[in-house]
Amino acid sequence: MISISDDRGAILEGLENASKKNDLIIITGGLGPTKDDITKNTLCEFFNTELVRNHTVFQMVEDFFKKRNKPFTKLNQDQALVPENCKVLLNYQGTAPAMWWERQGVIYVSLPGVPYEMKAILSEQVLPLLIKNKNLPEISHFTIFTHGIGESFLAEKIEHWEEKVKSSGFGLAYLPSPGMVKLRLSSYTLSMSQAETLFQNHFEELKNIIGNFIFGCRTDNSVLTMEKVVSELLLSNNKTLSVVESCTGGFISHLLTSIPGSSAYFRGSIVPYHNSYKTELLEVDLILLENYGAVSEECVTAMVQSSLKKFHSDFAIATSGIAGPTGGSDEKPVGMVWIAVASQEKIKAKKFLFGNDRIRNIQMASNSALNLLREFILE
Amino acid sequence: MISISDDRGAILEGLENASKKNDLIIITGGLGPTKDDITKNTLCEFFNTELVRNHTVFQMVEDFFKKRNKPFTKLNQDQALVPENCKVLLNYQGTAPAMWWERQGVIYVSLPGVPYEMKAILSEQVLPLLIKNKNLPEISHFTIFTHGIGESFLAEKIEHWEEKVKSSGFGLAYLPSPGMVKLRLSSYTLSMSQAETLFQNHFEELKNIIGNFIFGCRTDNSVLTMEKVVSELLLSNNKTLSVVESCTGGFISHLLTSIPGSSAYFRGSIVPYHNSYKTELLEVDLILLENYGAVSEECVTAMVQSSLKKFHSDFAIATSGIAGPTGGSDEKPVGMVWIAVASQEKIKAKKFLFGNDRIRNIQMASNSALNLLREFILE
Repeated sequence: MISISDDRGAILEGLENASKKNDLIIITGGLGPTKDDITKNTLCEFFNTELVRNHTVFQMVEDFFKKRNKPFTKLNQDQALVPENCKVLLNYQGTAPAMWWERQGVIYVSLPGVPYEMKAILSEQVLPLLIKNKNLPEISHFTIFTHGIGESFLAEKIEHWEEKVKSSGFGLAYLPSPGMVKLRLSSYTLSMSQAETLFQNHFEELKNIIGNFIFGCRTDNSVLTMEKVVSELLLSNNKTLSVVESCTGGFISHLLTSIPGSSAYFRGSIVPYHNSYKTELLEVDLILLENYGAVSEECVTAMVQSSLKKFHSDFAIATSGIAGPTGGSDEKPVGMVWIAVASQEKIKAKKFLFGNDRIRNIQMASNSALNLLREFILE
Repeated sequence: MISISDDRGAILEGLENASKKNDLIIITGGLGPTKDDITKNTLCEFFNTELVRNHTVFQMVEDFFKKRNKPFTKLNQDQALVPENCKVLLNYQGTAPAMWWERQGVIYVSLPGVPYEMKAILSEQVLPLLIKNKNLPEISHFTIFTHGIGESFLAEKIEHWEEKVKSSGFGLAYLPSPGMVKLRLSSYTLSMSQAETLFQNHFEELKNIIGNFIFGCRTDNSVLTMEKVVSELLLSNNKTLSVVESCTGGFISHLLTSIPGSSAYFRGSIVPYHNSYKTELLEVDLILLENYGAVSEECVTAMVQSSLKKFHSDFAIATSGIAGPTGGSDEKPVGMVWIAVASQEKIKAKKFLFGNDRIRNIQMASNSALNLLREFILE
């Protein structure tokens, strides 16, 4: 992947170099209505053509602004200008259409750079067209999602398994991100059905080695998140959840409510960020708070019980910790977080020690809280 | 910028091509302890050297795991192996040190790929070294942050200003992201003091044209967010804030609490995701809810008043809307969001109509809510 600037020379050079080595070139960005966006004009130069008005696009862009009560200005009318010799792919999310060319065995696709517009056109139009038109090789990806173990410790535990996996024809990648390490197995040589069968055997073996760290699996290259796994678990058990977040400050609620349909199981949350609201809104005993502090097993246990009561939910999560960069002490350093999960029958609380980075601590604590709930439900 | 795979040939080819055209090459990633990370070994090949143990790094990595109560395994000990002929830059956030070479007038820097480790080493060590060692050209960036106007409408409004800016020696880029368009002015020819003076004149003129859309400015290329602007406004006025979030599901609270020191002004929030808690926790009148629905001026006004009362805060924000993808109707389509802001003296409520994408609707509503509060405080 090459990133270049909005510069005519850089665009032309990039296209020429890429054409020499590739069958498919996907270009993103530079299709906006402002003067700094010159990709469309430069593509005309590259493909020796000129801009013409596309009537379907014109109609769509006009409707787009009408729906939003905005005027249909000259600059936006120009979004309907497309290179004459391209195939136009319509943009149902925004104003810049995508463009498709084939020349000397190479396919060129130019997509808008706005991520959600690009993703929609790519998945709904470009990929189906490629699958239809091309005799594509069989590439298989399988992804295993782990939580709670660093990549170096994981690698030592699965050293022999890794060797076996590789000798059976897969590549293995360790893909770490805050709160998880993904193991991606990729095959470029096996048939898809062969790869699938082999993978299932490898996966069963891996569960025997590190099963307690695995929270999910995908038989492709797609994304799985801890909040998605928890939401599926709640949905399939017909259970509800509420959250009380101190140090995570609303991030667990945000992760859960980012998922369409979360209102079916997510009841709500309270963020008692200032300590006085732990008492006022959640009725955490003032003497308890004074004796043990907000970052304590006692406080987080009281908070999770209050959450169950306030929201009448089947399960609840509570977090309290020191996100940093300041506020730590020798006894309770930055990165220390207490997390509790509970049902109407039982409670589990656990202390975690993360690092010095505020944003990372919030992410790690949220992910660990959701994982604690996942294990708690499965128990 | 070029992205390549963890492949020996691709790394060597990338380095050779880059060396031909650049004075500085920054490499990120591939320094982890697992077998798929081969950058360090490939760099040894490229620089004709071999790995030796660095005792300072060994000590630091040992301490890193001791502090976290983790064993110091063989794989992690190998993180202390560095190419013999490089200058080592220590990593205070993680285990993989950075490396620096100079050869035939080209500087090569290899950094770990974990974003917060990479950023720390780059800003604290690499950039200071570059500034010290090199006679660098004067490049000036200035960034103006707008909210509430699409880039095409902005471009039409400031057409003449844009021409003036360009003829005075600046480049202008429109950088849109959900809820904002950044205008970045860049000069590669003016001296920094010349550029600064010119920019201040341009900025004053721009305020006369689109002042009501500008929420901030930076005299460099750094990031400014709406939540940062709001937090500075609250801090400097010594005021507090609470939030009640329905459709934004905790995202406003997350944005605010991502900022270090936010506990000084952020009191807390309630996410009454299920409608019953709008009544139970916030005492929104059940008859009001039945008559007008949760997505209404009446409901969001009642919610914001309740927030002020519950948290005794100086200001409050409330949101209620249909994030999508389902749940819309003809009267209240997906993307419709009511937002209210209030102080103890007055209330302002406003209806917004965003798009079809759930995540984008949450982002746009959160950003718009914070901007509504910003305008409200400034009034």
